[in-house]
Amino acid sequence: MLQNDIFLRVLNGKVTERPPVWMMRQAGRYLPEFRALRDKYDFFTRCKTPELAAEITVQPVDIVGVDAAILFSDILVVPQAMNIEVEMKKGVGPWLSHPIRTAQEVAQVVVPDIEESLGYVMEAIKLTKQMLADRVPLIGFAGSPWTIFCYAVQGSGSRDFATAKELCFTDAATAHQLLQKITDTTILYLKEKVKAGVDAVQIFDSWGGVLSPEDYRTFSWQYINQIVEALAPLTKVIVFAKGCWFALPEMATSKAAALGVDWTCSPQQARILTGEKKVLQGNLDPSCLLAPPAEIKKRVREMIQAFGSAHYIANLGHGILPNVPVENAKAFVEAVKEYRL
Amino acid sequence: MLQNDIFLRVLNGKVTERPPVWMMRQAGRYLPEFRALRDKYDFFTRCKTPELAAEITVQPVDIVGVDAAILFSDILVVPQAMNIEVEMKKGVGPWLSHPIRTAQEVAQVVVPDIEESLGYVMEAIKLTKQMLADRVPLIGFAGSPWTIFCYAVQGSGSRDFATAKELCFTDAATAHQLLQKITDTTILYLKEKVKAGVDAVQIFDSWGGVLSPEDYRTFSWQYINQIVEALAPLTKVIVFAKGCWFALPEMATSKAAALGVDWTCSPQQARILTGEKKVLQGNLDPSCLLAPPAEIKKRVREMIQAFGSAHYIANLGHGILPNVPVENAKAFVEAVKEYRL
Repeated sequence: MLQNDIFLRVLNGKVTERPPVWMMRQAGRYLPEFRALRDKYDFFTRCKTPELAAEITVQPVDIVGVDAAILFSDILVVPQAMNIEVEMKKGVGPWLSHPIRTAQEVAQVVVPDIEESLGYVMEAIKLTKQMLADRVPLIGFAGSPWTIFCYAVQGSGSRDFATAKELCFTDAATAHQLLQKITDTTILYLKEKVKAGVDAVQIFDSWGGVLSPEDYRTFSWQYINQIVEALAPLTKVIVFAKGCWFALPEMATSKAAALGVDWTCSPQQARILTGEKKVLQGNLDPSCLLAPPAEIKKRVREMIQAFGSAHYIANLGHGILPNVPVENAKAFVEAVKEYRL
Repeated sequence: MLQNDIFLRVLNGKVTERPPVWMMRQAGRYLPEFRALRDKYDFFTRCKTPELAAEITVQPVDIVGVDAAILFSDILVVPQAMNIEVEMKKGVGPWLSHPIRTAQEVAQVVVPDIEESLGYVMEAIKLTKQMLADRVPLIGFAGSPWTIFCYAVQGSGSRDFATAKELCFTDAATAHQLLQKITDTTILYLKEKVKAGVDAVQIFDSWGGVLSPEDYRTFSWQYINQIVEALAPLTKVIVFAKGCWFALPEMATSKAAALGVDWTCSPQQARILTGEKKVLQGNLDPSCLLAPPAEIKKRVREMIQAFGSAHYIANLGHGILPNVPVENAKAFVEAVKEYRL
């Protein structure tokens, strides 16, 4: 039995004494303990060495006291397993020397055997569960098919992913083939994660916000929803789609247990778009953690009041920034834990 | 008298036989004629040489047949005039070797004499009006105070402008002082543009979308609205704030003659947020112009139907991309011009 199950209780629709709290990218560069490992091991070595991934995952539980751990990994391990070569280039970010842009290239992309290609993730989950020793639940995650597609086709990060969208607008059939392969892989991958022991999963749609509402339904949401449908019988699924306020009404009718909200959508507006009882997660502007702790605490209290303290998971509206002082991250978590109606 | 005044008629609340059409960044890199000048003269030389700016401004009127010209210039000429050194670095974009981040640095920023520091813009306007010879109206523009502030404080482009926001969250008084100086300058600047002959002005808030709705009101909208209030008695003011769907209801109550909408807000949603009779401008995803002309025309017709053909100016949801074939830009403009109820 978990010692602290407040996060899971909220995902199960229960009303709790205060909101649970965790932070996207909480296992990250703002922690000196993380930076120490980062100086010794490169990015994918950290992802692919279960002992390192587990150690990094547990750091924010020990140091800032969050109510849930999220497995340290990267959304790009999935395309790597699919025969898509992705590097993490210094100062550039994700980089593909051979982007996937033609029907022929899509044909080379495989739906892999998960145990064989991503077994190291399952090992990391098992090890993390041991290290957590039932203190808090563990979240597993995956990128949305659209977001993986963006990197695979664009070949790098981008402000608008215009090349990725160009494939959709000029050869939709090929785009859909690639999106379906990513979706099939992601379903298998997340099912294995559940078997390995994660207590919930989150789907990150980092780049859904570059699409119009109609294109979002066609090229992103329908694939996310396949994942939600496949996983909902097995675990709690959280969907976080940055910049996709417009899709919240449709998402609210899905089997997702919770929906992430970024800070450009006010809590009140998010409640209007999703109905009163949908569990929402978010949404402090990550830049606010650069403010002094007193200002952070004030903003956190206002945020909780605006969402309502029930059916709500406190979080940032996107990943924590690398230059946030650890004290400020602690102030964020403390402010939620101190909150009383 | 203008030969083609359909753009101004719509801004004046008239119902026209079809929507007028222009494209943000229509005087830009997708035109071979623009690229020819770009290879010969650097960025700010083109902005600051009235003959070049006028020639570039008129190119899309001649080549793609838009219903309005927009003066070729850059939002960064304003901070340059304010004693803020801004370069355009190759492959990097806007770059400040000395970003403005302290009260002392803000104190060095001046509200300049416009004629002295930005007289070349007024010359470019007069020359452009001559070259246009009353064919279509001319739009002048400025960046929003918040967007200029973002560059001035961050010191470069950025995905999140976290350093700019940090100043707001840690030293709001200093941030407001800088924002007010930019606002005062922009009002003087746009008033001079009207005197020099522009027929309407557009304010571009390119980076308002990095703020939460509440912070947007505090750090962006209140300054834009000062400009709208000052200019509305003199000319028609269009406000385009990318990613700021959440602010549309408040903007709709202002004296702005029209509001720009990006493609992440559906036309129907934009109408709901602003009321039926506010003039709206937008919002095709610029990446759609990479699709074949037939697909472009289909999407344009759907867009016009969704906005309703009255009180509407057809445009993209952001600037035209440099790699759009000229034929496709023409297809966009033609589709609007062919539209009949």
